[in-house]
Parts: sequence; C-alpha cells; structure tokens
Amino acid sequence: MRVSQLFIPTMREVPAEAEVVSHQLLLRAGFIRKVAAGIYHFLPLAQRVLHKITAIIREEMDRAGGQEILMPIIQPAELWHQSNRWNVYGPELFRLRDRHERDFCLGPTHEEMVTALVASEVRSYRQLPLLLYQIQNKYRDERRPRFGLLRGREFIMKDLYSFDRDEAGLDVSYWKMFAAYTRIFTRMGLRFRAVEADTGAIGGNASHEFMVLADSGEAVVVYCPDEACGYAANAEKAESLLVPYEGGDEGPLELVATPGRRTVEEVTAFLGLPTQRLIKTLIYRTERGLVAALVRGDREVNEVKLQNHLGVLSLELADETAIEAATGAPVGFAGPVHLDLPLVVDREVANLKAAVAGANRADAHYVNVCPGRDFSVADVADIRLVTAGDPCPRCGEAMRTVKGIEVGQVFKLGEKYSRLMGAYYLDEQGVKRPMVMGCYGIGVSRTMAAAVEQNHDADGIVWPASIAPFHAVVLPVNSQDARQVAAAEGVYQILSGAGLEVVLDDRDERPGVKFKDADLIGYPVRVTAGRHVAEGKVEVRRRRTGETLLVAETEVVAAVQRFLHEGSGE
Amino acid sequence: MRVSQLFIPTMREVPAEAEVVSHQLLLRAGFIRKVAAGIYHFLPLAQRVLHKITAIIREEMDRAGGQEILMPIIQPAELWHQSNRWNVYGPELFRLRDRHERDFCLGPTHEEMVTALVASEVRSYRQLPLLLYQIQNKYRDERRPRFGLLRGREFIMKDLYSFDRDEAGLDVSYWKMFAAYTRIFTRMGLRFRAVEADTGAIGGNASHEFMVLADSGEAVVVYCPDEACGYAANAEKAESLLVPYEGGDEGPLELVATPGRRTVEEVTAFLGLPTQRLIKTLIYRTERGLVAALVRGDREVNEVKLQNHLGVLSLELADETAIEAATGAPVGFAGPVHLDLPLVVDREVANLKAAVAGANRADAHYVNVCPGRDFSVADVADIRLVTAGDPCPRCGEAMRTVKGIEVGQVFKLGEKYSRLMGAYYLDEQGVKRPMVMGCYGIGVSRTMAAAVEQNHDADGIVWPASIAPFHAVVLPVNSQDARQVAAAEGVYQILSGAGLEVVLDDRDERPGVKFKDADLIGYPVRVTAGRHVAEGKVEVRRRRTGETLLVAETEVVAAVQRFLHEGSGE
Repeated sequence: MRVSQLFIPTMREVPAEAEVVSHQLLLRAGFIRKVAAGIYHFLPLAQRVLHKITAIIREEMDRAGGQEILMPIIQPAELWHQSNRWNVYGPELFRLRDRHERDFCLGPTHEEMVTALVASEVRSYRQLPLLLYQIQNKYRDERRPRFGLLRGREFIMKDLYSFDRDEAGLDVSYWKMFAAYTRIFTRMGLRFRAVEADTGAIGGNASHEFMVLADSGEAVVVYCPDEACGYAANAEKAESLLVPYEGGDEGPLELVATPGRRTVEEVTAFLGLPTQRLIKTLIYRTERGLVAALVRGDREVNEVKLQNHLGVLSLELADETAIEAATGAPVGFAGPVHLDLPLVVDREVANLKAAVAGANRADAHYVNVCPGRDFSVADVADIRLVTAGDPCPRCGEAMRTVKGIEVGQVFKLGEKYSRLMGAYYLDEQGVKRPMVMGCYGIGVSRTMAAAVEQNHDADGIVWPASIAPFHAVVLPVNSQDARQVAAAEGVYQILSGAGLEVVLDDRDERPGVKFKDADLIGYPVRVTAGRHVAEGKVEVRRRRTGETLLVAETEVVAAVQRFLHEGSGE
Repeated sequence: MRVSQLFIPTMREVPAEAEVVSHQLLLRAGFIRKVAAGIYHFLPLAQRVLHKITAIIREEMDRAGGQEILMPIIQPAELWHQSNRWNVYGPELFRLRDRHERDFCLGPTHEEMVTALVASEVRSYRQLPLLLYQIQNKYRDERRPRFGLLRGREFIMKDLYSFDRDEAGLDVSYWKMFAAYTRIFTRMGLRFRAVEADTGAIGGNASHEFMVLADSGEAVVVYCPDEACGYAANAEKAESLLVPYEGGDEGPLELVATPGRRTVEEVTAFLGLPTQRLIKTLIYRTERGLVAALVRGDREVNEVKLQNHLGVLSLELADETAIEAATGAPVGFAGPVHLDLPLVVDREVANLKAAVAGANRADAHYVNVCPGRDFSVADVADIRLVTAGDPCPRCGEAMRTVKGIEVGQVFKLGEKYSRLMGAYYLDEQGVKRPMVMGCYGIGVSRTMAAAVEQNHDADGIVWPASIAPFHAVVLPVNSQDARQVAAAEGVYQILSGAGLEVVLDDRDERPGVKFKDADLIGYPVRVTAGRHVAEGKVEVRRRRTGETLLVAETEVVAAVQRFLHEGSGE
C-alpha cells in the first residue's frame, strides 16, 4: 500500500488531556481519534493492529477448545435482575429503554447472557466441558474515563466462559486458559507476568491477572526474584511472611501528652520510638457502619484485603465529622483503646507487645498498649499492603515490585452464576448438579495501548513485529531522485511479493518528514533507498535498536525477515 | 472438529413466531437463539458463516481501495443534531444517557460519525478519494421486529463511505462499489439481482439495491426479461412506459346514482365500464395536511413515489373521519371534482378523456369526468405501482416480477452530509469545496438469513460452499461398527489434512439422527462410511442434489472438492 493513499492523519500537537504515552502516541501517529470521553475511532492502522491481536487470540482460544459465538451487546434487564446485578452494578452500567419501555443495558460483561444460554441448551454431562467465547465491544460508563484506550467507556474484549462438571474440570479449563494466555502474550512479543489476583468483586475462588510490564502501569506487581519460587501477585492481593516483631516489653497502659503530634512520624519522633511500635487506626465507612482498621505505623492498609475480609460492598475512609463523632477527638488521635467500633487487627499489630496508639482525645496517646489486654484482638487478619523487600510468602526471599498494566484475567467463578441463572446438568447417575464456571477476559483494545506503553521511545512507537500494523516501510530519501524512487518501488514490490506487509512512502515530502513519521508510527523495519542506490544498495534499519544494514536488492527480504524475527518474542 | 464436542443445539420444534424459513431453520439447526425481540445469539455455526461472509466482504472492500476502520457504536447526540436527524429519526433510534446526562444513540448508520471524522482530518484534494468502511453491529428499534435475522433490532452491517472531489469522482467510487458488490454476492454463491432503488428517505441522487432472489422475499423486483436491456428496479422505484389509453370520448359531466357501490369493481360493473375508466381517489395525511392521489382504477398507488413527489416526511392513508370531513361523503365516494384538496394526478389519469369518479356525496359518482376540464391537472406525476406485464421504460418489453431480499445497497449521497457536517477540502486552485459522498451497506447477518431463504429444501439448509460453516461432514452409519468408525476417522483425517473444513459426527446416535442433522445443518457434502467400507469405499453425497458417488479413500478429497466447486457460484 502507498502512504499517499492511506488514511494516517498524524498530528504534531496532542491535547493536554492525553496524559499517558500510549494515548499521546496513538493520537499523534494517526491510530485513534476521540469521539467523546472514553470513546474512540480506530483508524486504519489501529484496525490492522486489532486484527492481528484478535487473530492471535482466536487461534489460541480455538486451539484450547474454545468455540466462538457472538452474543448481543444489548442485554435485557431481566437477566441482570436474576443475577442481582442490575442494582449492584451502579452508574457504570449503561442503561437504556426500548420503544416499549423495556429496560436493557449495554454489556460490560456477559456472565448473565452466556449462563442463561447454556442453562437453556445444555442438559447432560456429555455436553460438558463447554468453552464459549466472543470478541466484541464492551461498555462501562466510567466516572472519569482517562488514559486513552486504557480506561475507556467503549472497548473491545475477548471473553470466554467455561462450563464444567465439577471443580476438577474447572481446574483443567482454568489452566488451559492460563496456558493459552501465556502463549497469546508471548506471541504478541510483550513482556508480561501472570500474577495472583484478588477475587473479591466478582466473587470467585481463584484468579490470575496477566500484566504487561510498563513503568507507566497503574498496577503494582509484587514478585519473588527467585525464579524457582515464581510467586507473583497483584499488590492488592500480595501476601508476605509474617516477620516476628514485638517491639518492647509489656508495661502498664499509660496516657501521655502528644501536643499537636498527629502523624506517625510526629508521634514516634516525639516519643523516641520506631514507627513499627505505633498502631495506626484508620476509620472506614461501610454499608454496615463504621469500622476501625489497625496496621503498624510503618504499613499501609490494603483496602481490597480489608473489604474482602469484611465482606462489604462499599468501603471508604470516613470523613472528619464521622471520625470526631466516633472517637470524641480530632483527627490524628484515634486509637483502639476504649473505642466503640468493630476492630480489624492486622496480624503484625496483634503481634506487638507494647505499642503506641491514639487515645481518642486531643493531643494524647497511650503507650504500653497491649493488644488483647487493652483492646480486643478477636478479629485478626492480614490487611496490609505488601511492599518491596517484604519476604516472599512461599520462600521468604525479599520480594520486588514492578509496575504493570492488566491486559487479561482468568477467573474461577465456581457455581455462583450457574445457581443464579439455573445452569444445571444431569450427571452420569442422573443427579442434577450446577455447572462449575470460569471466565477469562482479554482487553483487546487495551492490549494495543499496553503494547505502546511498553514499546516506545522518544521518537514514537516500536511495535512488536507480530502485532505491527505493517512489517516494514520503504521510502526513497529524495522523492525527486528518479533512481531512488525506482529503487524504492522495486524493493517495495520485492518485499510485497515475498508476503511481507509493506507500505511505500511515496509522498513528495522532505526526508525528515518521512523518517519522523516512520519512527512515530513504529514500523518494525525501515528500508531506505538513498545515495547507496548508486551501488545497488539500500539501507535496512531496525526500529527498536537502530541497527542498520546496507544490502543489495537480492538480500533485502532476508534482512527484513531477520530484523522481524529478532524483534518477536523478545 | 468432532460433533460430540461442538455446541450445535438442534431443536425439533420451533416457536410459532418463527414465520419465515430462515428463522425456522437457523433456530432448528442450532445457528441462532433468541434473547429478546429482534435480538439474537449467534452460535458457533452461525459465527463461522459470519466469518466467511465478512472475509469475502473485507477482501473485496480492500481490493476496491477501501480502508477498514472501526467507529464507536455509541454516538453523541450532538452529531445527530448537526445533521438534523436526532428528531427526524423517531422511535427507531435507540437512545441512552450517560451518567453525566449526556445524550447518545446506538448507531443505526454512521454518516454523521464518519463525515465528522473526515471533516476534521482531511483538508486537501490530494487526500481524496477516501473510502472508509467498517463491519459492526448496528441498531434499529423496530416497532415490530420479525422474520428472525431479516428484521432484527441488533444486526451486523458492513458500511463503507466514499469521499470524492466531485460528482465524477463519486461516479467512479460508486461503480467500483457496484462491481465489488457484484463480486461479493457472486462469490457467496447467491442468485441475486442489482436493481435501481428509491433514494427518497436518505436523500441522494442514485441508488441500487442488491436483492437475493427468494420466493419469500418481501421486496418485489420488476425487471425486463431482455438481457440486452437489463432494466431492473425495486417495485417502489420501478417505472414503465406510458401506454396510451384515453377510454372513450369527452361528454358533459353527469352525476349518476351508484347506490352502495364503493369499490372499483362494484362501480365499474354497475356502470358497465372497464376498470381503467375509473379514477381512484385516495386521501393521504401528511405533515403538511391532507392530499388526494389519483390513479386509474386498475392501478395501485406507489406510496414511495408519491411521498418523494410531495417531498414529505410522513405519508399515511387518512382515516375515515378525516375522509368524510374532507369529502362530505362516506368512504368510497371520494373524487377529484369540486374537491378542496391538493391533487396529485398520475400520468395515466391525466391521459383519460372521459372517466368515472366519486362525486363526494353518498351513493353517487360522476361520469364523463374530464381531467383538466373538471379538475386541475396542474400536478401530474408517475405515482403508480408497476406490475408484471407493464412495458419496460427502456425497451418496451413486457416486464416480469420476482421476489427478493435486499442484502446490500449502494447510494450516491452527494453533498448533503458534507455540507451539514462541514466536510470541505481545498481543490488545486485553493478553492474550498464540499466533498461528494456515497454510502454503501451490506447486511451481514441479513445475508446469512437471505442465503437460507434461497438455499434450503424440506430437509434443511443447503449452504453455498463458500459460506458454509464447514465444507463436509463425515459420519459412520453404525457407531457400533468398529470398521465403519475407523474408516470415518480415516476419511476425516484425510480431508482435514487436505485443508478442508470437516466435522466428524462421532456421536453414538442412530443413523437416522445423524443423517437428519447433516441435512438440517446443510453441510454441502456428506461422506458416509457404511457397508461399503468392506470394499474400502465410502459414499460421498452432494447436499444440494443428492448426487452420490461411491469412492475409495484415495479418491475422497477429489470427490468432495468436485462437489464443492460445482456447488459454488451456481
């Protein structure tokens, strides 16, 4: 194809709202255009990338025994009432009414639809396992859509649902999908990590997320550097070994004045104690009322763990008024002693012998606070955020952290939706049993953006070869030089004839413009017909490394293919 | 693939609401399932057919210079206000509000979106022509969804939009698309006809529809049997030569009693005149008030022609009360003489010399009614429906009619949307000009249903090879016979190895069940391992004709391929 005829509207300036690099580069390089907040056009280059991503996904889903279907995007409210999610889902669910005033939503996910379908069509154990998937637009009315394709309101997903006879069957399906996802992201040439993930929100019993590693990632991955161990988890889920720390000997509870000292640092510095000895008391509001969470002064609360532990639907820090009403003291002086709230005590706090804690009165703390003696430790749990350096829960090695972008998730749903939507089967003995389900998603448009977050430099995108919109661009340096133009045209024909996807930059533009655009768009290989044409040679350059070869026309296919293959799966 | 593992939920009984054969067969053979009125799941077999249809469309769109993009399904209301269609579109437009109370719709078409996109990105004549297309779900909230996939509320479309510098450029794009559509439906193995179509509703200046011929089709195609002429049109659009018929000599207008005679037949029989001599007066309600349409007694009004001629948005027959108020007479006695309504006079009526017409009073008609003398013929137009036998407007040959299902339409839009959405470019002289647009749609899911309407028999579907979900099914007659099972397995491997898409019916079912399912699903070729396995032979049967070959394993690939190729493009 010829660049002069392709619709690639590159931009010099991107809007200020494009905060992340994938958003900026996909706009600048002419891949996407915004229609409304979180809603985008995919232009021809993006559509080519999406086709490559979906082709890889489709092949691997089929290989793993998945059968492709296409379910409606508009879903009847009745199904969501049946699963009790119509009300739970809140304002993120796009809702609409048809002309007969019947309620529908635009599917953010398809558990209800697929389970109702299978419930009405599958009756026997002989029809299981069944793995159904689709690739389709999904909708989520985000309060604050941002980061371009990373958090949009309309996006493309692959979702597969597995239906098995029992937990053992689910286990097989789950690990089949895990393996398929590993192949998918490997084939896409992305550096990624599969990590243990929280299962709280959808309600299941095991989950892994696939994270594309990128400094700009919103998610934090905690992992064990010992590859033999291999532990890795989303920070929301990550655990660590409990390191013994008692911090001093028991003594009588004592009230001390801490005038104006509110923060952990202020209080412990004032008292000459390490931050580990302080009990941090955070008061949260839930739909069941206020609750106090206790972590050590050097730790942060992991709100996902806390929410799962409590089993509540909503959890947010209480406001100042509520804190003052509950503690009788200004913010900064809350503590568990004589506090009339349910206490959730982190394991490390329960382990302390003599701690410092707010006294629930202004400018005062208790010292020698003894968990169990001075407040109840009936409810002890791991509610803290793990950080770099914490010991691996499996092998004790000091763990590390890295940032990532979630592009896929595999999830054991169990029997929840089967029971709600009536998906039962008859087993070999004729006994009616609920099917055991799993669900498995990949953010298709998100993966495109994540690939850019991971693969770019100051000049633009650096596409992995397997998902690049084209394999190579061919350009004459000087569009007025007939020999260069002819050489470029010849190389373009040779490469196209060899089955490579190539564009010819035939525009009458200055060399700088063509080079800049080639780098910005991120073709993995650039072939330049310049002054060496006189010697019958062209320059083949690898986008990622800048490595350049000067080759004869007869060698150009091999050179391009070498750079493409070296570029894949690295 | 093995039938035992495929999700093909066949049914014995279909719901009564499945009125048309494609709806019945696609349900029975396990291709689709209903979710809500006009909203369907596409199950694995359907998804395979859809993939084949879209692959053919994509190849031909690309070959014709189209560039694939993907526009959002949810469209901001602002764009529809800009084109004045937000209010015009009425209740067929699915509308929704986001959490910030902004209005959106689910796109029934994408003129607004694509024109706004091109308006903001294309500035120069050098960037034109530009042909952008997408394949995507579309939405139309039909008052009465029916006929399965033929009139759904959620359906899959390919829509391409062409942007050209001028009418001459549009003409090139238009005929390019016309040729591409001809290739597409030919490659799909469908019998079809491209016919001239009405352009009224969207407002353009030329259009053709592609009709898949089927007795069950809702559309009537009028065509000239002389292939050298080739005239063909949708009945809504079809014209015919005006055949001279004056019907008697002028005489003085005379009132005659016609007690209780209201219909054309009653009045003409009573008066002993041919139906041609009667003027039928139909009163319509439009947004501009009532209007009377006059056609000859042996003709019907073509409401599309009438509406276009009047240039009104709404047109429907007036109710009894309105007719009585306007004519002063009961229904059945309306006529143009002394009628105080705008008259639209069909050409044939204007041609009459002495006619009969209602007298606008009960039980009375006028005879010797003279158009021009007794009522105004200021507004003469062709407003009648053409029927079989009418002379071709080009060559005069007696035309024929056939029924069809519209699966595609090409449309010259002209400058309408360019002007409304601000899609201008600078020409070679730096003069700002509106782009000249065309739009070109194919109903993808509709084509699947139309293919079934055209290709089925009493036993089930008869897929054309190029869009069949699989090329062939292999089955052992007796699942308990080890030799037959082994032979079937062997043939299945041979055919799969030859690159054919084959399923093995490995279910432990009676032969009758397997044969019936194979015919119902409509695999183009069935290979049976039965008693001839003893002689090393299997039976290869062509679904469409029942033609059967007994061949050795070494000949099976050639036999299957022969039947497939004979089956395509017929």
